[in-house]
Amino acid sequence: MAQSYEVNVGTSSLKKAGRNALTRDTIIQLGGLRIGGPDVVVIAGPCAVENNDQLLTTAKAVRSSGATILRGGAYKPRSSPYSFQGLEKEGLELLREVSKLTGMPVITEIMDTRQVELVSEYADILQIGSRNMHNTSLLKEVGRSSKPVMIKRGMAATIEEFLLAAEYVMAYGNDRVILCERGIRTFEPSTRNTLDLSAVPMIKHLTHLPVIVDPSHGTGHWWMVPALAKAAVAVGADGIMVEVHYKPEEAMSDGAQSLTPDYFAVMMEELDKIAGAIGKKIAASDLTFAE
Amino acid sequence: MAQSYEVNVGTSSLKKAGRNALTRDTIIQLGGLRIGGPDVVVIAGPCAVENNDQLLTTAKAVRSSGATILRGGAYKPRSSPYSFQGLEKEGLELLREVSKLTGMPVITEIMDTRQVELVSEYADILQIGSRNMHNTSLLKEVGRSSKPVMIKRGMAATIEEFLLAAEYVMAYGNDRVILCERGIRTFEPSTRNTLDLSAVPMIKHLTHLPVIVDPSHGTGHWWMVPALAKAAVAVGADGIMVEVHYKPEEAMSDGAQSLTPDYFAVMMEELDKIAGAIGKKIAASDLTFAE
Amino acid sequence: MAQSYEVNVGTSSLKKAGRNALTRDTIIQLGGLRIGGPDVVVIAGPCAVENNDQLLTTAKAVRSSGATILRGGAYKPRSSPYSFQGLEKEGLELLREVSKLTGMPVITEIMDTRQVELVSEYADILQIGSRNMHNTSLLKEVGRSSKPVMIKRGMAATIEEFLLAAEYVMAYGNDRVILCERGIRTFEPSTRNTLDLSAVPMIKHLTHLPVIVDPSHGTGHWWMVPALAKAAVAVGADGIMVEVHYKPEEAMSDGAQSLTPDYFAVMMEELDKIAGAIGKKIAASDLTFAE
Amino acid sequence: MAQSYEVNVGTSSLKKAGRNALTRDTIIQLGGLRIGGPDVVVIAGPCAVENNDQLLTTAKAVRSSGATILRGGAYKPRSSPYSFQGLEKEGLELLREVSKLTGMPVITEIMDTRQVELVSEYADILQIGSRNMHNTSLLKEVGRSSKPVMIKRGMAATIEEFLLAAEYVMAYGNDRVILCERGIRTFEPSTRNTLDLSAVPMIKHLTHLPVIVDPSHGTGHWWMVPALAKAAVAVGADGIMVEVHYKPEEAMSDGAQSLTPDYFAVMMEELDKIAGAIGKKIAASDLTFAE
Repeated sequence: MAQSYEVNVGTSSLKKAGRNALTRDTIIQLGGLRIGGPDVVVIAGPCAVENNDQLLTTAKAVRSSGATILRGGAYKPRSSPYSFQGLEKEGLELLREVSKLTGMPVITEIMDTRQVELVSEYADILQIGSRNMHNTSLLKEVGRSSKPVMIKRGMAATIEEFLLAAEYVMAYGNDRVILCERGIRTFEPSTRNTLDLSAVPMIKHLTHLPVIVDPSHGTGHWWMVPALAKAAVAVGADGIMVEVHYKPEEAMSDGAQSLTPDYFAVMMEELDKIAGAIGKKIAASDLTFAE
Repeated sequence: MAQSYEVNVGTSSLKKAGRNALTRDTIIQLGGLRIGGPDVVVIAGPCAVENNDQLLTTAKAVRSSGATILRGGAYKPRSSPYSFQGLEKEGLELLREVSKLTGMPVITEIMDTRQVELVSEYADILQIGSRNMHNTSLLKEVGRSSKPVMIKRGMAATIEEFLLAAEYVMAYGNDRVILCERGIRTFEPSTRNTLDLSAVPMIKHLTHLPVIVDPSHGTGHWWMVPALAKAAVAVGADGIMVEVHYKPEEAMSDGAQSLTPDYFAVMMEELDKIAGAIGKKIAASDLTFAE
Repeated sequence: MAQSYEVNVGTSSLKKAGRNALTRDTIIQLGGLRIGGPDVVVIAGPCAVENNDQLLTTAKAVRSSGATILRGGAYKPRSSPYSFQGLEKEGLELLREVSKLTGMPVITEIMDTRQVELVSEYADILQIGSRNMHNTSLLKEVGRSSKPVMIKRGMAATIEEFLLAAEYVMAYGNDRVILCERGIRTFEPSTRNTLDLSAVPMIKHLTHLPVIVDPSHGTGHWWMVPALAKAAVAVGADGIMVEVHYKPEEAMSDGAQSLTPDYFAVMMEELDKIAGAIGKKIAASDLTFAE
Repeated sequence: MAQSYEVNVGTSSLKKAGRNALTRDTIIQLGGLRIGGPDVVVIAGPCAVENNDQLLTTAKAVRSSGATILRGGAYKPRSSPYSFQGLEKEGLELLREVSKLTGMPVITEIMDTRQVELVSEYADILQIGSRNMHNTSLLKEVGRSSKPVMIKRGMAATIEEFLLAAEYVMAYGNDRVILCERGIRTFEPSTRNTLDLSAVPMIKHLTHLPVIVDPSHGTGHWWMVPALAKAAVAVGADGIMVEVHYKPEEAMSDGAQSLTPDYFAVMMEELDKIAGAIGKKIAASDLTFAE
């Protein structure tokens, strides 16, 4: 008498993203780096690209602690039109330059169908942010791109809708999709969002795609990030994405949730132990990346 | 000893949308029609434009019952990539044609920055849907348009974020913004969304912009629409937007929440009485509209 | 071709509260007063009973404006143990006294199974607060009482759970149950709760019990109360419950959401018009109440 | 330049539960067992006590795998009055008996102020369930008890309200309070609740009390329990509470979220590794417990 695995999610539309579509887990290769599988990948960097010094210093610091992918926003989706909206093309150029200097592939957010071509020239992974997870025009457009796409869960998206966003990208021809749990909106005011770590095993139950967890946006508090990062690895995530800033108190955005390089280094040591405890390891940092 | 009107909303960024920016309420003129002010405007029509017969029959029916603006989707944001995505340009042409035949201005959704020019040729009001309320690229682009813009509240957007979406459009030059409450996402499973009618007086407290209520998406059940439409008028909304289909059981989308023309006619009589009870009236249907 | 009324609510357990259990709507008689049916009943009074002067002055004021039932808390469920917890038995005595002087029946909250006997001696309607909607021990105990019971919806209770709370009371022998929508907890921070007015037609669809709306707790802002009270009547509620305090700025609890008697009087005139617009009337205030 | 630890929680009312009240973490001793501190305690057992065979078989199984506290409900808070409500006093007697036979202290839920005396005779820890977290009468009453109290977070309780529930118990004289995160109610339908693991570091930031995590109620799916249990330990919880049933498919309640003893045994081995990775260990199972 076996116990049921039944779940209240409509999977009939998940023709490509669903478990039935593929017998093994998807592993996305980026140079020598693998997202998915036995490695735990660590994506780190500043919320927004601000200038060369900030990006390079932060990138070198996180790389030396074991991060293997560099994050940084060139286009920033801000609630207010009067907030800093990103360095745009200049930000992309800085990302590319620092990527070459550090050997780290780069992930950056794309916000407009008209940006896909340009951003694809500079970035190694295209990020669809939470605010655009339901933007089906954009999902279709990155579906036509040759670059891997990481989709962040919408702030009030069900897991079913989240997977359907991946299906949009895949239906338009791009199979290299990564999902990112970054917290959902609830009534709780003490954290920026409520990080839904149960989404990780649920997504892995329903799909073959890799899942990353973002404890920075998930909590909004830098001092909570290491604890939630450890939990993310323990729950089975294929990686984490963390905001790090060399001077958080001077950050143009998200300073309150950004780790300093020192705290990041301590966290990486802890993550290594958790990864080991579940038979995984942090993806090696001695990558030689060449596009 | 006066009572406080204090509210937990940051209004400093509402430079154009906020109450401080304008001493009187914004009234948006469309031909002889006014949105805002003492009139209650009724927007009605099918969820999606399906064909000429469906659109024209429905349009004539709602117009004869007192609706003054025609709604209909040519581009549909669907959760699944395999669902009907709208007739696109053909849908826009049908809307324009039926608009001419019935004298009703047309509102339709725009989903992509690249569509703004095209859709502006066909539509009288550009609609930003819930899924794109946080799509700041699109907000900026319609901010550069000369057409009025109606923004639907994001499914998990706070009122503050909702008003900042309006501010985006206004910051880029377009002052003719309408806000539409269409229900928020909560834990309650018996309705499609939870219609937040308290948003209407709150928005009117904070801004000078007109507010429309959509009880169709707000409830997801056609038989609840009249009750919530009456409540929307009673609470002070400047209008309602309702889905009507001449054959709801055959609708390609949202049939369960679409009124038949007969039920719509009954509802309009009831709305008329509620409007009268608060000193307003339903905007006249004998408009002669010519762009 | 009939449209479907189908709803995602399990009604099989609603053996007494469900629509199938009774062919007509339940009307609860209190002296000459009827809750349910064509009348709209107005319950008003202070959040907490503070002293004789406060209660009597407020009661007389609301009665003269048309309220017919007096509310006032003797036992207060406060978030902090160090907040005012109510006058307890002394509060009950004041309620009884003012009830006699004004001819208004009294509703007050009961928080403990051990209080049922005592409170039943003083109150005409027993109120189960939101925080105790899931307190099945208390529901069973008031189910054994001969007094009508008004249950407030739990802050995160689904409509199905809300109706099952009524079923608990009825299963233990007490058929005179009133339901009160008072707002649910959502992510929106500008209002105390999100008043779910769609709950009114949904509850009336599923059950024969009367439904009251509490716009004071639903919004948390006194200046929003009249608009939401009008909407509640328009949506089909059988009555409203409103907090009124003769000196809100000195109230020991909930001052920010309490109307002054003057604003209450204005609101009552507006409610009268809305009630008329839907073919109802405000329950007459010239009741002679004697238990 | 230190980064801020500021959090949007009112801590002034946390006179006894707050961090300021005690310089070290509270450790609750139960015989040789410690809740809080370097040990990770595992509470396991069936949702409801059904009969002697079920309880004893399950208890022996979980004990042999390393659980040290036995859970089992004698009074069950069910949504429907027609669902199984627990064996009541007979259930308490079975718990006591099995406790003696296995040497495991017993935790069981208390739902009514009138049960405190009786349940305290049988149980070692009194549990306040989610549905009663806001039941301040009950909190006061267990505050007068000499038994440790574990409070489960209300389904829509903020962390601030959760801590204030602890403060209620402590304000009435009982310092031995344990907090239990068990998932909050959100819009996500695929899991029973959304387990808020960020609550653990937040609660530890604000208070000195031990925190337990319940991944069974948190997810509603037995197959997700081990992953979330590992995450709970990694995030810093002082223990976990898990539902185990020797025949889940025949359970009178919560079968879908109950582990079999075999899966429980596997999970315990995994938890041991995670605990080791963060410098803790699973509380030893060779306790000799004597009341």
